[in-house]
Amino acid sequence: MSNQIKVGIVGYGNLGRGTVDAIKQCPDMELVAIFTRRTPDSISVNEPNVKVLHISQAENYKDEIDVMILCGGSATDLPEQGPDFAKMFNTIDSYDTHAKIPEYFNSVDRSAKESGKTSIISVGWDPGLFSINRLMAEAILPNGENYSFWGEGVSQGHSDAVRRVEGVKGAVQYTVPIEEAVEKVRSGANPELTTAEKHLRVCYVVAEEGYDQAKIEQDIVTMPNYFADYETKVNFITEEELKENHSKLPHGGFVIRGGKTGSGNKQIIEFSLNLDSNPEFTASVLVAYARAAYRLNKEGQVGAKTVYEVAPVYLSPKSAEELRRDLL
Amino acid sequence: MSNQIKVGIVGYGNLGRGTVDAIKQCPDMELVAIFTRRTPDSISVNEPNVKVLHISQAENYKDEIDVMILCGGSATDLPEQGPDFAKMFNTIDSYDTHAKIPEYFNSVDRSAKESGKTSIISVGWDPGLFSINRLMAEAILPNGENYSFWGEGVSQGHSDAVRRVEGVKGAVQYTVPIEEAVEKVRSGANPELTTAEKHLRVCYVVAEEGYDQAKIEQDIVTMPNYFADYETKVNFITEEELKENHSKLPHGGFVIRGGKTGSGNKQIIEFSLNLDSNPEFTASVLVAYARAAYRLNKEGQVGAKTVYEVAPVYLSPKSAEELRRDLL
Repeated sequence: MSNQIKVGIVGYGNLGRGTVDAIKQCPDMELVAIFTRRTPDSISVNEPNVKVLHISQAENYKDEIDVMILCGGSATDLPEQGPDFAKMFNTIDSYDTHAKIPEYFNSVDRSAKESGKTSIISVGWDPGLFSINRLMAEAILPNGENYSFWGEGVSQGHSDAVRRVEGVKGAVQYTVPIEEAVEKVRSGANPELTTAEKHLRVCYVVAEEGYDQAKIEQDIVTMPNYFADYETKVNFITEEELKENHSKLPHGGFVIRGGKTGSGNKQIIEFSLNLDSNPEFTASVLVAYARAAYRLNKEGQVGAKTVYEVAPVYLSPKSAEELRRDLL
Repeated sequence: MSNQIKVGIVGYGNLGRGTVDAIKQCPDMELVAIFTRRTPDSISVNEPNVKVLHISQAENYKDEIDVMILCGGSATDLPEQGPDFAKMFNTIDSYDTHAKIPEYFNSVDRSAKESGKTSIISVGWDPGLFSINRLMAEAILPNGENYSFWGEGVSQGHSDAVRRVEGVKGAVQYTVPIEEAVEKVRSGANPELTTAEKHLRVCYVVAEEGYDQAKIEQDIVTMPNYFADYETKVNFITEEELKENHSKLPHGGFVIRGGKTGSGNKQIIEFSLNLDSNPEFTASVLVAYARAAYRLNKEGQVGAKTVYEVAPVYLSPKSAEELRRDLL
């Protein structure tokens, strides 16, 4: 099919692999190449028609790739790659360093406006789908409160923090919404709740031999920023158990708004995700927005965008007529 | 505030009243007038600056009203009013006769394109917010199934049907999702389910004196189209109980998509509403989309639209910069 959208991927970690899988579910898309900073030969992708190339070769594919999906991280990859690739391609990324979004938006916007490309930044589920729901729920119920809960799911940042504790051989940290807080919010009571009052932190830890578990536990639960403010549970397990039961990356969460209308009627809007694989789901969102970036660019809507600027119709491979008839 | 969006309302039933309340929660909007087919004097609106006028006077307000919110019904009001008012105003409506949406869209589109106005049709929660979630979930998880559940809530159509049964003095019908079906769907099992396998119908009935309750019950549960295919429960209550406990119009429901990514990971997306007042909530959605219609028209995006063509940013009174900084 020559009218398929031609897609490239930059970065081949969990998110990049998920993106390969997500594109395979879209008959209107074709994956052309994966670009990596590693030696291309060191990467094996089980897709006969997909090239694996060094990232420095990307510029040679300007005319062959319609949208580039940037699968790097927000800390160091995207601040450089976002504005760089927007000079050459329509792009999608999952930039999620919240405090720096305005700055990142502006730098990508400058590149994309210069090149006449369309870049949708901060795509995924939070920021992304959760953001859309926060905005829409607030616009519909101005008299109310938004609540975002994350989990139950693996937090990479907190897992890494536990792994840095002396005597820890391996660890996974789950963020778990506190059920009573969730129920209070769902009832429309609109309580005041800090992040720590909404979430438990549950750690599964493999201790090095000869280390005192009580000491490790103490070091974890008192760690500032990460755990000190939270109710934290530490479970010691064996290395086999860690591998067997905790090697997946599930996640999810919910955005709830409780609002009041008229003479005090309670109205609750909730959006929730329950994900077996966080990176594969995030990748699926990126791919749907890649379709949107391609179409927006065709219409001349250039520059940086967020999910807020993208109408739902651009995400679906179906025509507006079909959608009105079958799905509205 | 002279830069407020000036809004008019056509029709003053439950939805029109909810719209008056919803506009009051929006400092960027001003309600100018309510237009009715009844004698304007017969309607009392507790808003000193709001005119109540006969619908025939609407055309005199072409320059004073930015958006007209059509609060009539889909059976007879909107098929006429939609295309008529789109000749003079930006409009919002909640047209929900599903099978006729394409036809209605075309007729409103013709009017709006001729007049240079913007009309967003079929706004509310279903069609409306549920439609957006069906589209987005399907676009993100192509390999999956959508499920829409309605309730627990009052169905006006089914309540009316019960009231027409001989010997029934008063009645309310609640549509109730079947918990086991919901749980099966939430687990990602993607079962095949008919509407009847997803919902119970629960009726509260006041019998006329001298009528046989067993006969009334039989007449209800065997009624074709409305009840015969469903598990239906009939509860007889007193007139006082009906008034005391069943005079509100709660509703809600959920849209769930179960999909699979990668090598079979289950991913569940759910959107749900739990509403004390269906008409007040629907009105709140109409008002947020009235803001969007006004802005789209300012940008020259004329013609008929659905919620599918409206990017989230148009719904919020906040600027794109504020939204990126505070809510993304």
